[in-house]
Amino acid sequence: MFSYETSVRLHFTDAAGLLFYGSIFTMMHDAFEEFLAANGLEIARIFKEKAYYLSIVHAEADYRKQQSVGEKVVINVGCETIGDHSFTLLYTILNGDGKTAGTAKTVHVVVDRKTQKKTVIPPNLLQILRSSQ
Amino acid sequence: MFSYETSVRLHFTDAAGLLFYGSIFTMMHDAFEEFLAANGLEIARIFKEKAYYLSIVHAEADYRKQQSVGEKVVINVGCETIGDHSFTLLYTILNGDGKTAGTAKTVHVVVDRKTQKKTVIPPNLLQILRSSQ
Amino acid sequence: MFSYETSVRLHFTDAAGLLFYGSIFTMMHDAFEEFLAANGLEIARIFKEKAYYLSIVHAEADYRKQQSVGEKVVINVGCETIGDHSFTLLYTILNGDGKTAGTAKTVHVVVDRKTQKKTVIPPNLLQILRSSQ
Amino acid sequence: MFSYETSVRLHFTDAAGLLFYGSIFTMMHDAFEEFLAANGLEIARIFKEKAYYLSIVHAEADYRKQQSVGEKVVINVGCETIGDHSFTLLYTILNGDGKTAGTAKTVHVVVDRKTQKKTVIPPNLLQILRSSQ
Repeated sequence: MFSYETSVRLHFTDAAGLLFYGSIFTMMHDAFEEFLAANGLEIARIFKEKAYYLSIVHAEADYRKQQSVGEKVVINVGCETIGDHSFTLLYTILNGDGKTAGTAKTVHVVVDRKTQKKTVIPPNLLQILRSSQ
Repeated sequence: MFSYETSVRLHFTDAAGLLFYGSIFTMMHDAFEEFLAANGLEIARIFKEKAYYLSIVHAEADYRKQQSVGEKVVINVGCETIGDHSFTLLYTILNGDGKTAGTAKTVHVVVDRKTQKKTVIPPNLLQILRSSQ
Repeated sequence: MFSYETSVRLHFTDAAGLLFYGSIFTMMHDAFEEFLAANGLEIARIFKEKAYYLSIVHAEADYRKQQSVGEKVVINVGCETIGDHSFTLLYTILNGDGKTAGTAKTVHVVVDRKTQKKTVIPPNLLQILRSSQ
Repeated sequence: MFSYETSVRLHFTDAAGLLFYGSIFTMMHDAFEEFLAANGLEIARIFKEKAYYLSIVHAEADYRKQQSVGEKVVINVGCETIGDHSFTLLYTILNGDGKTAGTAKTVHVVVDRKTQKKTVIPPNLLQILRSSQ
């Protein structure tokens, strides 16, 4: 299980004094980028090679505990299911006390840059996903 | 049905050239703020009165069509269900051609500022939600 | 003088209860996009034609008054100077009382997409800038 | 000299394929939060104690080199000047090659939470700033 550690940055909060709900989706993508990099696939490389991009077609999150500015956040990333052209990631968000603050899910489709249509998951990405199931 | 009209701002896009998935959640909250204001409940007033805030405990979105920078976006907001302390909003996101680009849902809990516990939906907010079902 | 009207969205604020300083730069770019569109140059067109993009090489802002969530914001946009490959925009940010909340400046360089080097300001953009001086 | 290391997150980029100019201000505040924390003053503590907040009244940045998604970013933070109620921080942003991508400056005023007026820099913060000059 890959773990990404960060904290609730001031710009992730809003006037209610807590984490803005949209920021959790932003932090999850940061976790996803670190997850790929930790497995040898830098997002910079995906963009430089221009073969494909990953389009998120579904996202959902449940928040159990409010988080405040400066609080430690740990996001665990794992792969739930793998299809031909898409895959689903699961996230568990832990707060500063190590308790589950939320859970989330994103569904990614691989899109061919040239045709702008869905394409099969590239072998190196597929291997990363399989090893994270 | 309340409609909020905006466009895909440059800062809502990412290097893939399209709307960043987290930005749709940001735009939905903009739509929610305009929905309240159009019904006579300014978000500024909620924050000035300091009686309660609205905490989003669940959010989900499905994206059918990619949207690019500058493209017109219409977000329709309606209320799906109303509980004692929470309510669920539904959103339909239309693209520049008036076609459905995505759908989404947010669940809001009313939190008392003093006790930091859930509390009943205030009458003026309840009326707005009922008239939007 | 072009005026863009918006409000302090919840996601533009932070836990201090006020506008996050970085958000003013985001709002200024929204104002710039609307300024171009109001003058017949949609940002969507710039990106579709893929001839050039506008790179901001300098930005600065002074804030005199704090702004809170939901407060009305008016951003006036004007052109200060025009060079061969770059131009400078000036912004005045008015708060809900119509008083100056801040002033700002951005310097934009026209970059050729193919060569990734600076290039002359396109005629249609030049005309817009001149009429806004 | 304090150094904060991060990378150009996808959500920091825009459709031009590069770092969105407003994101550099966001990243600088992340660096500032880490700078304080590394010197024993967690931003969480400032917010929990509710004695004061730091209001940014001026910000400016110069960008020499464009940065792309996934690229390493190092932000060096130092203190330029210290006044009675305010202080100025200087930032140097290095890109993946260790070259200067940009420089920036922020001016922070200490605001008393109760009176909402400027107040003297607290001793622990003052000590941090002096040791960073």
